[in-house]
Amino acid sequence: MSAPPILVVGSVALDDIRTPFGEVSEAFGGSAAYFSLAARVFAPVRMVAVVGNDLPAEHLDDLQAQGVDTRGVEVADGLTFRWGGEYGYDLNARKTLFTHLNVFESFHPSVPAAFRRSPYVFLGNIHPALQAEVLEQVEDPVLVALDTMNLWIETARSELLQVLGSVDLLILNDSEARELAGEPNLVRAGRGLLELGPSCVVIKKGEHGALMLGESSMFCSPAVPLEQVCDPTGAGDAFAGGLVGHLAASGDLSDDAMRRAIAYGTVLASYTVEDFGVAGLRDVERADIEKRYRELRLLTQFGVEDPVQKTHA
Amino acid sequence: MSAPPILVVGSVALDDIRTPFGEVSEAFGGSAAYFSLAARVFAPVRMVAVVGNDLPAEHLDDLQAQGVDTRGVEVADGLTFRWGGEYGYDLNARKTLFTHLNVFESFHPSVPAAFRRSPYVFLGNIHPALQAEVLEQVEDPVLVALDTMNLWIETARSELLQVLGSVDLLILNDSEARELAGEPNLVRAGRGLLELGPSCVVIKKGEHGALMLGESSMFCSPAVPLEQVCDPTGAGDAFAGGLVGHLAASGDLSDDAMRRAIAYGTVLASYTVEDFGVAGLRDVERADIEKRYRELRLLTQFGVEDPVQKTHA
Repeated sequence: MSAPPILVVGSVALDDIRTPFGEVSEAFGGSAAYFSLAARVFAPVRMVAVVGNDLPAEHLDDLQAQGVDTRGVEVADGLTFRWGGEYGYDLNARKTLFTHLNVFESFHPSVPAAFRRSPYVFLGNIHPALQAEVLEQVEDPVLVALDTMNLWIETARSELLQVLGSVDLLILNDSEARELAGEPNLVRAGRGLLELGPSCVVIKKGEHGALMLGESSMFCSPAVPLEQVCDPTGAGDAFAGGLVGHLAASGDLSDDAMRRAIAYGTVLASYTVEDFGVAGLRDVERADIEKRYRELRLLTQFGVEDPVQKTHA
Repeated sequence: MSAPPILVVGSVALDDIRTPFGEVSEAFGGSAAYFSLAARVFAPVRMVAVVGNDLPAEHLDDLQAQGVDTRGVEVADGLTFRWGGEYGYDLNARKTLFTHLNVFESFHPSVPAAFRRSPYVFLGNIHPALQAEVLEQVEDPVLVALDTMNLWIETARSELLQVLGSVDLLILNDSEARELAGEPNLVRAGRGLLELGPSCVVIKKGEHGALMLGESSMFCSPAVPLEQVCDPTGAGDAFAGGLVGHLAASGDLSDDAMRRAIAYGTVLASYTVEDFGVAGLRDVERADIEKRYRELRLLTQFGVEDPVQKTHA
């Protein structure tokens, strides 16, 4: 593949997940894992993360086999980050049962020399000071995208605002957008976030899709309406992976390209939620993705023609 | 206007509404009022309803002035239906403070002879037995649309199922769709509702837009993203009014026409929520509606081209 590479930094975790449709324990996950498995469909992915020496070797082997370069994954003495969560029938609301940072607690991302010239960079939702450390190690990126979470908005706001000054694309969910902007109206919140540095803000709304705000453009995508949703964990990271992956592959950062990239992100997220953990992303093929992209387009298109003018003028 | 007329039956009410942005008392409202003020933009509207002799004359005069034929509005001895409701910052969730049915309690809709040949019929969310009474009085309609509510799903299910057998288009909100179908997944709920009679189901999701399911088609529209939402009361009825109004005006019931009609319904709903009560609908002009329709289209469109194939094949 000749698409330019994407550098991702984020968490790698072992997750315990319970939904009304089943449960899994010690499932491979984390924001960097979901992002990578979605983005690698479109472009080579370089991962920077930390794992404990308890992580079964198969997980990183599997990533390698899927085209993810894991030379930036540090294996530290100790246990891998663990997260446990539970969902009810309202899969848009989740309850965190436990978070054990383990080796993640003292993580300082080190970008291997071979990764430093990565034109596309995705800063997963780690502490903003660590996101800034990564940016300092990267040379002349074309596009820097950043995700964050309520925890950092509340506990590391000034560091977050500082790193946002160097970010092109901010991807975050609706409650985070409202909290960071201090504004309940989502459109006004998005406009407020644009003033913090990024030239584009993408607000994820879970099953209700995504809203993009640019300096002079707005775009809405629904989520793919699915008959079977199994586990929403990682959908937002897979969305970001599909989005940034497609931007890298197209080499186009225009408004039209951003819309298409959001639609591809939406498609990758839809595969994620159809199975537990990363299972839904593992076997998805390019032809399936293109088919679902066309279905999403059919789902949202309507004509400009106004037949009223014709028949009753 | 040469568009064929629409018959609407539903409630006319005086509403007390409180939102974080203000409050109004004894505001003119009710499902038939909102529906009519939206539909009359596209087609002549004939209203069947009941009011008390306390209703200030200006309200019906105003409807007449806007092109709504109110000859089917019965003025009964007693008080007009009154409803009180309150919204918090989550405008998608509302709390009913009181419901005084008053003259509505003993209402039996009588369709004037001049209204009986109405090609388009909208049965607002009154008791399904009354909806059936209206249908019995109408001759050969082209399209019958029906809205309902949780109260009737819970207390008059068999009557509702019976009238649904004579309905072409079912318009209801997401919680109603889930409850009527007995299915939490919205796509499966929609498919279940298609089996009850209607050839098309439109599920309203408030600020999250609408989902249409036909026998072989699905369409998603977002709501118009607004910087100022004032009062969501009546938005669902205005949505139905814009939708059915545009279908009547276009004389086209194809899948493409249904998509356009849903987009027009979405636009009318957006004007409704920008002000209290029916005020947002009163002054809206056709040119404004067409402009916002084009904006909604721009908001949702994305290309089929996949530049990845071109640049990296």
